[in-house]
Amino acid sequence: MDPTLQELAAATNVLFVLLGAVMILAMHAGFAFLEVGSVRAKNQVNALVKILTDWSISTLVYFLVGFPIAQGIGFFDTAQLLTANHGLQLVRYFFYLTFAACIPAIISGGIAERARFWPQCFAAAIFAGLLYPTFERFMWWHTDTGLQAWLQATYGAPFHDFAGSVIVHSFGGWLALPAVFLLGPRMGRYAAGKSHPIPASSILWLSLGSWVLAVGWFGFNVMSAGAIGNVSGLVAVNSLLAMVGGTLAAVVTSKTDPGFVHNGALAGLIAICAGSDLMHPLGALATGVVGGLIFVYGYTFVQERLKIDDVLGVWPLHGITGTWGGIACGIFGSQCLGGRGGVSLVAQCIGAGAAIAVALAGSTLVYGILKATVGIRLTPEEEFKGADLAIHKLGAEPEKEFGLR
Amino acid sequence: MDPTLQELAAATNVLFVLLGAVMILAMHAGFAFLEVGSVRAKNQVNALVKILTDWSISTLVYFLVGFPIAQGIGFFDTAQLLTANHGLQLVRYFFYLTFAACIPAIISGGIAERARFWPQCFAAAIFAGLLYPTFERFMWWHTDTGLQAWLQATYGAPFHDFAGSVIVHSFGGWLALPAVFLLGPRMGRYAAGKSHPIPASSILWLSLGSWVLAVGWFGFNVMSAGAIGNVSGLVAVNSLLAMVGGTLAAVVTSKTDPGFVHNGALAGLIAICAGSDLMHPLGALATGVVGGLIFVYGYTFVQERLKIDDVLGVWPLHGITGTWGGIACGIFGSQCLGGRGGVSLVAQCIGAGAAIAVALAGSTLVYGILKATVGIRLTPEEEFKGADLAIHKLGAEPEKEFGLR
Amino acid sequence: MDPTLQELAAATNVLFVLLGAVMILAMHAGFAFLEVGSVRAKNQVNALVKILTDWSISTLVYFLVGFPIAQGIGFFDTAQLLTANHGLQLVRYFFYLTFAACIPAIISGGIAERARFWPQCFAAAIFAGLLYPTFERFMWWHTDTGLQAWLQATYGAPFHDFAGSVIVHSFGGWLALPAVFLLGPRMGRYAAGKSHPIPASSILWLSLGSWVLAVGWFGFNVMSAGAIGNVSGLVAVNSLLAMVGGTLAAVVTSKTDPGFVHNGALAGLIAICAGSDLMHPLGALATGVVGGLIFVYGYTFVQERLKIDDVLGVWPLHGITGTWGGIACGIFGSQCLGGRGGVSLVAQCIGAGAAIAVALAGSTLVYGILKATVGIRLTPEEEFKGADLAIHKLGAEPEKEFGLR
Repeated sequence: MDPTLQELAAATNVLFVLLGAVMILAMHAGFAFLEVGSVRAKNQVNALVKILTDWSISTLVYFLVGFPIAQGIGFFDTAQLLTANHGLQLVRYFFYLTFAACIPAIISGGIAERARFWPQCFAAAIFAGLLYPTFERFMWWHTDTGLQAWLQATYGAPFHDFAGSVIVHSFGGWLALPAVFLLGPRMGRYAAGKSHPIPASSILWLSLGSWVLAVGWFGFNVMSAGAIGNVSGLVAVNSLLAMVGGTLAAVVTSKTDPGFVHNGALAGLIAICAGSDLMHPLGALATGVVGGLIFVYGYTFVQERLKIDDVLGVWPLHGITGTWGGIACGIFGSQCLGGRGGVSLVAQCIGAGAAIAVALAGSTLVYGILKATVGIRLTPEEEFKGADLAIHKLGAEPEKEFGLR
Repeated sequence: MDPTLQELAAATNVLFVLLGAVMILAMHAGFAFLEVGSVRAKNQVNALVKILTDWSISTLVYFLVGFPIAQGIGFFDTAQLLTANHGLQLVRYFFYLTFAACIPAIISGGIAERARFWPQCFAAAIFAGLLYPTFERFMWWHTDTGLQAWLQATYGAPFHDFAGSVIVHSFGGWLALPAVFLLGPRMGRYAAGKSHPIPASSILWLSLGSWVLAVGWFGFNVMSAGAIGNVSGLVAVNSLLAMVGGTLAAVVTSKTDPGFVHNGALAGLIAICAGSDLMHPLGALATGVVGGLIFVYGYTFVQERLKIDDVLGVWPLHGITGTWGGIACGIFGSQCLGGRGGVSLVAQCIGAGAAIAVALAGSTLVYGILKATVGIRLTPEEEFKGADLAIHKLGAEPEKEFGLR
Repeated sequence: MDPTLQELAAATNVLFVLLGAVMILAMHAGFAFLEVGSVRAKNQVNALVKILTDWSISTLVYFLVGFPIAQGIGFFDTAQLLTANHGLQLVRYFFYLTFAACIPAIISGGIAERARFWPQCFAAAIFAGLLYPTFERFMWWHTDTGLQAWLQATYGAPFHDFAGSVIVHSFGGWLALPAVFLLGPRMGRYAAGKSHPIPASSILWLSLGSWVLAVGWFGFNVMSAGAIGNVSGLVAVNSLLAMVGGTLAAVVTSKTDPGFVHNGALAGLIAICAGSDLMHPLGALATGVVGGLIFVYGYTFVQERLKIDDVLGVWPLHGITGTWGGIACGIFGSQCLGGRGGVSLVAQCIGAGAAIAVALAGSTLVYGILKATVGIRLTPEEEFKGADLAIHKLGAEPEKEFGLR
C-alpha cells in the first residue's frame, strides 16, 4: 500500500503540472472578463463567446497537431502514453496548451468590437495549431538546431525565456498588431482626424478579469519549472514583486486610473515571465516598474499618436512589454545586477526580435489572406448594432433588452 | 526533521484530497452565479442565499449522518480519527460532502424563481443527509452487496462511474424533475397554452458561474482518484476534451448563443465524469459532443414541447446528460473504441436506470409530501414581487431599489 | 533523475506553502469585491484601486522591513537564501505577507466612501511594514521573550493562535475602530441624530467577494501549518464547520438577509482561525455559530446604537469576532470539550486583550497624526461626488457615465 519514492515523485509531479494547467485555464476566464469590462456593453457577449470558443478550438488543434509539432509527442499510436507515469505527457500537453491558447486570447482583446467571428476562429486554429507550436518547438524544445544553437555558439548562451514573456506574450501581442491594423479602427474612433476615446463598459468586470489573470499567473510562472523537482520560490516572489512594480508604476503615472492600475499589474507579470528564475527580487521589481510604465505610456501613444485602435492595448501590454521582458532578463539576470547569470543580453535581444519578425510575418499573411477572401470585419450596420446582437442574437442583459425590467 | 516516505506520502495524500474538496467548494459559487445570471433580476438574491444555505445544511447533515451512512465512518466516538493520517478521513468527508451538496445545488436551478425557501432547505437536508448517501453507499462503497454485486456476477463488471456522471449529476437532475413538475411553471411562462420564454437577467453572471464550475471541475474529476497515488493525467485531459466537445457542439448548433455555449461546456464535463479514467481522449471528445447536443436540443424540447419549466435546464443538463455519461462510459470505455476496458455496456445502462428510478421515487415522495403539507410554492403575489423582496426583503441592487441611484 | 526523499520533501513543502500564499492572494480580490458590493456605486472604483494599491505597498514594505522584523530574515546579503531549499524562505515571506496585507484590506472596509487615498496608503505602509510585523514577531516567532514567555511561565501555556483570529483579524479590526472614529460617519448617515442606513450597491458583487474570501480561507488556515508535514484535515474541516455555523446563525437571526448571510460565513471563518487545529469539529461549529451571532447583532449595535459608521462592519466582523476566536480557542480547545488541550483560557484572554491594546494605541497614533497633519477625509464636495470621480476621475461604468449607453 505504501508507494515507493519513485511512485510518489511521479504522482506529485503530475499533480504539480496539472495544478499549473488548471490555474492557467482559469486565466482564460480572466481574459474573457478583462475584455468584457473593457469593451462597450453591446460587445460583451461576443468577448465571452470568443474566448471560450477560441479556447476550445485551440485545445483541439493543439491536441491533434500543435503538441506533436512542438514536442514530437502525439497520442494516437502510443496508447501507453495515456497512462505512463500517471499520464505525465497528457498533463504536459494540457499545460502547454494553456500557453498556446493565450495567443488567440491576446489577439482577441486587440480586435474587439468589430471583428467577424468565424474568420477569427480560423486564425485561432492556425496560430494555436501551427504557427505558435512551430515557433515554440525551436525556441523551447529543439534548441540544438536553428536560432538557439546559433545563439549558444555565438554568444555563449541561448535565448532564455523561462515562462514566455517573449515566446507567449510578445508573440501574441505582435501577432495582434497586423490584425488590428488590417481591421482598422472602430467606427467613430478617429472621426475627422481627431481621437474620440471610447469608454469601457465596466471597471468591475475589467478588474475581475485582471485579478483572475494575476492569481492564475502564479501557475503560469511557477509551474513553468515543468517538474516539482524544479519548483522555485524565487520564481513566485519575482512574479509577485514584478506585479507590484507594474501596479505601483501605473498608480503613480496614471494618477490612480483604475484601468491602468489593473492592467499595470498584468504588465509587470508579463515582463517578469522570461527572467523570473534568474533575477534578484529587486531586479524583478524594476522589471515590473518598467513594464507598468511601458503600458501606461505605450497605450496612450498607440491610441492617441499612432491612432491604432488596439482596444485593450494588447500590443503595448503583451507585445512591447513582453519584448521588454526578454531584454530585461538579459539585464537583471546578469550576475553584476544580482541575478544568477548564464544569460546574454545580445542573445536576448535577438530572440525577442525573432519573435517580432515571425509574428508580424505570420499575422500579416493569415489576416491578409482572410481579409482578401472572406473578410474579417463586421459590416457597419453590424458594428453599430454591436457584435452581441449582430452575431449572437442576444445581449448581455436579455431581461432588460426585452423590456422586462 | 526529515519525514519518512510514509509520512510524506500520507501528508501529500491529504493535500491532494483537500485541494479537490476546496476546488469543488468553489464550484458551489459557480452554481450560485450560474443561477444568478439565468433567472430574472428579482430572483438573484434568492439564488445566492439558497445555494449558500443549502451548502451549509448539506455540510451539517452529511457530517452528522450522511458520511456515516455512506462509508460507515463517524467522528464522535473515534477521536483518533481526527488526527490519524493527518486527518485523512476528515478530508475524505469534506471531499464527498462537496458531491452530496451538489444535489440541492442542481435542483435549485430547476425550481428557481417560484419555490419557497424553507421547504427547499428541508428537502436539501433529506437528500444530502439520507437519500444520496444511501444511494452512494451501495453504488460506490459497499459494492459487494446489492445491485453492484449482482451486476458484477451477471455482466462481469460492476457499474462504473469514476466521478459521478450518474451517481451525482444524473441523480440530482432526475431528482429535480418531479420537483419542477410538482411546482408547475413560472407564472406566465405558458399562458394560454403558448410558450413565452422568460429571458435571463445577465449573461455575464451566467458565464462567470460557468467558468467557475468548469475550472473547479478539474478537482471534481481528478481528485476522484481518491489518493495521490492514483492521480491520472488521462482523467484531466479527458475532462478537458469533453468540455471542449460540449462547447463546440453548442457553438455550432446554437449558432453561438452565449447561454448554450457556456452550458455546453458543463454538459461535456457532466458527460465525461463516469468514464474519464477509461476512455481515449478522442472518445472523451465524442462523449462531450453528444453531451452538448443533448443539452441544446434537450433544453429546447423540454421547454417548448414538454412545456416543463425547468429554469436552468437541469434535467437535460445534469439528468439526461449524466445518464448519457454513464452509458458513454460503457461505449467509449471499451477496448475496441480505444478505451481501457473492464466495463459492461449493459451494466452501465442498468446502473444509469437505477439512479433514475431511485431519484424519481425519492423526489416524488419528498416533494409530494411537502406540497401536500407545508406547500412548496410562493404565493402569486410573492412570485410577482420576486423571491428577493418576498423572502429576503432585499433585492440585488439595494441602492437602486431605494431610489438613491 | 529520481529525487531523493529529502529533495522531494523539500520541493513538496515549497509547493504547499506557495499554494497557501496564492490562495490568500486571491482573497484580496475577495476583499476588493466585498467592498465594491457593500459601498455605493460612486465609490466602487475606489474600493478596487485601494485594495490593489494597499496590497502592492504591503508587498514592498513587508519585503524590505516587515519580514526581517518579524522573522529576522532578509533577502539582501544572503543571496543563497534565494535558492536554498527551492526558495523556501521566499515563499514563507510570500505567505506571511498575505497575512500582513490583510491589515490594510480590513481597515479599508471600515473607512470606505470618505477616506482620502494617499494618507491611507501611508497608514497601510506603517501597519504592514512596522506595527503588524513587530506584533507578529512577539506573538508568533520570538515566543521565548515578552508576553508569550510570561504567559507560558504563568499559565502553563502560551497564547495560541493557529491561523490568526487575533493576530491578524482582530488586530486589523481593532486598528480600524479609531480610524473609523476619527474619520466620522459618512455625510448624512446620522443626520439630525437619526440613523439613515445607506444601502449597498450590489449584493452580487458582495457575494462574489464573500465566496472568493471563503474559498481562499482554506489556504489561510490549512497552510498555516507552515509545512506539508504538519498538514491537518482537522484544520480544514473545522474551518468548514465554523463557516457553516456562522452562515446558518446569520440565516436564522437575520431572516435570510443576503448581506448578513454572506458575511456570516466569513464571521465563522474568522472565529475559527485561532483554534482550528485544536477543536473537535462540533466545537468549531459552535465557535462559528457564535461568530455569526456576533456579526449580526454586533453590526446592528455598532451602526444603530453606537452610531459608529463602520461601513462593512469590520470592527464587529474582524475585531470582535476575531477576539472571540482567540477566547473560543481557550474554551473549545480544552480536552473536556472534546479539544486537544494544551491551551489556557486565561492566556487566550490576555493575548486577545493585548492585540486590542496595541491596535487601539497604534491606530490612534497613526490616524491621529495623519488627521492633524495632512488630513484623512475627503472634502464634502468630493464625498458627495463620490471617491471614484473625485480621486480616480473615472466611475465604475464609464460608458454609462459618458452618456453613451
